[in-house]
Amino acid sequence: MKTDKITELFKQELKVINMGLETFADNLAELGVQTQQVDWKPPAGGDAGLLELFDRLEANTELDIDAANAEAVSRIMQAKPTLVDIGIAADVVPGMHKKLILHAGPPVAWKNMAGPLRGAVIGGLIYEGLAGDAGEAEELAASGEITFDPCHHHDAVGPMAGVVTASMPVWVVENTTFGNKAYCTLNEGLGKVLRYGAYSEEVINRLNWMAEDLAPTLRKALHLRGPVDIKNIVAQMLQMGDEGHNRLRAGTSLMIRELAPYLVMLDEPKEKLSRILAFMHENDHFTLNITMPASKSSVDPARDIDGSSLIVAMARNGTEFGIRVSGLGDRWFTGPASVVDGLYLPGFSAADAARDIGDSVITETTGIGGFAMAAAPAIVKFVGGTPQDAITFTRRMYDITVAENDTYQIPAMDFRGTPTGIDLRKVVETGTLPAINTGIAHKDPGVGMVGAGLVRPPENCFREAFEAFVERYGA
Amino acid sequence: MKTDKITELFKQELKVINMGLETFADNLAELGVQTQQVDWKPPAGGDAGLLELFDRLEANTELDIDAANAEAVSRIMQAKPTLVDIGIAADVVPGMHKKLILHAGPPVAWKNMAGPLRGAVIGGLIYEGLAGDAGEAEELAASGEITFDPCHHHDAVGPMAGVVTASMPVWVVENTTFGNKAYCTLNEGLGKVLRYGAYSEEVINRLNWMAEDLAPTLRKALHLRGPVDIKNIVAQMLQMGDEGHNRLRAGTSLMIRELAPYLVMLDEPKEKLSRILAFMHENDHFTLNITMPASKSSVDPARDIDGSSLIVAMARNGTEFGIRVSGLGDRWFTGPASVVDGLYLPGFSAADAARDIGDSVITETTGIGGFAMAAAPAIVKFVGGTPQDAITFTRRMYDITVAENDTYQIPAMDFRGTPTGIDLRKVVETGTLPAINTGIAHKDPGVGMVGAGLVRPPENCFREAFEAFVERYGA
Repeated sequence: MKTDKITELFKQELKVINMGLETFADNLAELGVQTQQVDWKPPAGGDAGLLELFDRLEANTELDIDAANAEAVSRIMQAKPTLVDIGIAADVVPGMHKKLILHAGPPVAWKNMAGPLRGAVIGGLIYEGLAGDAGEAEELAASGEITFDPCHHHDAVGPMAGVVTASMPVWVVENTTFGNKAYCTLNEGLGKVLRYGAYSEEVINRLNWMAEDLAPTLRKALHLRGPVDIKNIVAQMLQMGDEGHNRLRAGTSLMIRELAPYLVMLDEPKEKLSRILAFMHENDHFTLNITMPASKSSVDPARDIDGSSLIVAMARNGTEFGIRVSGLGDRWFTGPASVVDGLYLPGFSAADAARDIGDSVITETTGIGGFAMAAAPAIVKFVGGTPQDAITFTRRMYDITVAENDTYQIPAMDFRGTPTGIDLRKVVETGTLPAINTGIAHKDPGVGMVGAGLVRPPENCFREAFEAFVERYGA
Repeated sequence: MKTDKITELFKQELKVINMGLETFADNLAELGVQTQQVDWKPPAGGDAGLLELFDRLEANTELDIDAANAEAVSRIMQAKPTLVDIGIAADVVPGMHKKLILHAGPPVAWKNMAGPLRGAVIGGLIYEGLAGDAGEAEELAASGEITFDPCHHHDAVGPMAGVVTASMPVWVVENTTFGNKAYCTLNEGLGKVLRYGAYSEEVINRLNWMAEDLAPTLRKALHLRGPVDIKNIVAQMLQMGDEGHNRLRAGTSLMIRELAPYLVMLDEPKEKLSRILAFMHENDHFTLNITMPASKSSVDPARDIDGSSLIVAMARNGTEFGIRVSGLGDRWFTGPASVVDGLYLPGFSAADAARDIGDSVITETTGIGGFAMAAAPAIVKFVGGTPQDAITFTRRMYDITVAENDTYQIPAMDFRGTPTGIDLRKVVETGTLPAINTGIAHKDPGVGMVGAGLVRPPENCFREAFEAFVERYGA
């Protein structure tokens, strides 16, 4: 009987609803069958182990993760990141000293450091006068005399290699709502620069000029002007085609506008002022080193909220990608740093590329960067893809976040707030990973930037973090 | 038989294709009938007189309007508007003299001038020292001693009232491809300003400062820097949320970036330089007075092409809206200036509004402004509407233009070139009028700006121009 009914069914003209794997629908469509595709994936990829973990979390009836996450994301949205000062790292960054080198990403030992980070450490030691050349620097780095620590452990963030040494000047961004601060070096420009692992004389000379001329002069102008509301600047940037991580042309223009009327008021040689204005003008990433500490200072008050599964840091050191979760304290969950899918500068190819590196992905934790790509369709010319990809990226991020930003809006999406506050549970449940766009460094020390692109973080660190979360909070 | 067939037809389940008027489809849809709406209008609105005119044009087999238009639009696209200088109107604007006042739009006599234009003329005469107060100025304006001429008759353009007097400084933009130049005063900022019809002491003082401090200093910086490629600036603006007519936040930021490193090199008191940088920073419309002469200089080489139906100027004087057509020489075709549909500044309403005024609609003739609204979704906060409206506006403009711009692109439309080169025939055939967004002046002299919005130009001037075109070129 049953067989008859099935036979009967297939004699009729079929109209098919296909859930999940699209290839079935594609085959049917090719045969002229009317099909409706339903985008569906089994929760947690149908992984029985993960489903059991979700059950254990739900079984803890005393736990209100949603409330904890709401509190965490509300702190991110209340943040008022404000540019208040420029200081010398040794003077302002907590715990900074001459023999300490800060770097991007989770902790990593010298022997495991990737090429660009090794290059930046070499450059940092030369810059500090602790080594005369690359050979001496490598020896010193390996000697155990130098301490290496993540920027994140010192309220700081660093783009790409993210190396901060004691005498480097840093932006000071204060989250005036909560009173916490975050620090970041000043941006050196693109190409042959320390953060991409270059350490030639040209690189060191530029760093010296930045410490001697650029930073003290900008500091005076900033003091004359008074603090700059970076939240407002970022909100404007998103209305002007920037996403705040890899496109900052508007942001840099806006910072120049803010500072120029005060720069000219200083008692400084005009050549010096002109060079500073030209330096900012020639480097559209100038403002990245301001949006990064702005993001860091915005998300830090959302750390250490009991029961919160919000991701409060993502960072890469070139060897590993790591995340931190609000309810899980200081612990890093790591996976191997990924290969970036990107566009290359003339003369370079994927064969030259280092793996994913840098703290700049802190921007994504506050709802900008890759999460706001729809605000910056022109970004695809820098990182590859089409404008439609940019919108698709942002759309997907709503699936793994807990809120829509109340300040950062996307004009092309009818001023919808950017997806803000990454929920670890949602990442694991949907299998959707955070969208990140990034620069690409050369794999060898001493070369510099070779391209930019999109990167997919390693899945395992999210899973391991989730396991730890259930271990801590599950029934 | 026939009746039976119809009866039979209506007994079946109907599936309807409805062409044209949507209300039929809406009614059917309400009754649950499956309908497919086809967007269709009869050519030229089904107007028999117009259709006959189209026939007469087609009957002239020796005429190749498409080729003439292709030549005209190719000249627009080859243009290289370049900011080369700042000069004093009397020295650089052709035919300028002390007793001549230039104004926006087509020609208009003093007695027919709208409030804002009267106010700006009063202010202009006071500024020139030709009148001591408003009463004296009105008397002089009415005396016949002063000549009034459109800016367009002197290679110039002026925003809103567009008043240019002999001692005002003007931007000089050269189209380096063709060697022609265009002129425009410097932007005064928003609110109580001459171009919106205000003429108080505050207005005159600002104009004096602009002539004595602002213009000569910017001129020196520009000379030190060298010419600025405005085509490049406009192309960038469209990637940064500007449309070049009513949103110029990115454009103004970019101009500040270009000039600041040279401004600081001048031997000028720092307070003077700081005030200049702050003045530009505080006025996002600063760059409008550069995009306007850039557009004017781009479109002028497309004038006077035999057989071309390209619209080479649109302009309003507050009383009339006028257009000029490439193949019809210097003649203006005019209709009554429209009421602007817009958003008002606090304390003002539609009752305070003057009619549409200004030469700024020259931007739309080169594929920016209203035609590029899709590039500037945030513009809707200034002129009203939704981001979707912005895209719809741009989409419609492809129906009445002959090319897609090869330089000005819209990121949100997959970098499609902006609709460029308005074909008078297409405007008349489709009934689609050019999309214009604009500021709103107070209807009385002496007040100033009250809002901004979207405006629909008068249909009759396009029809009359088309009649003249057929008169000249038809069989």
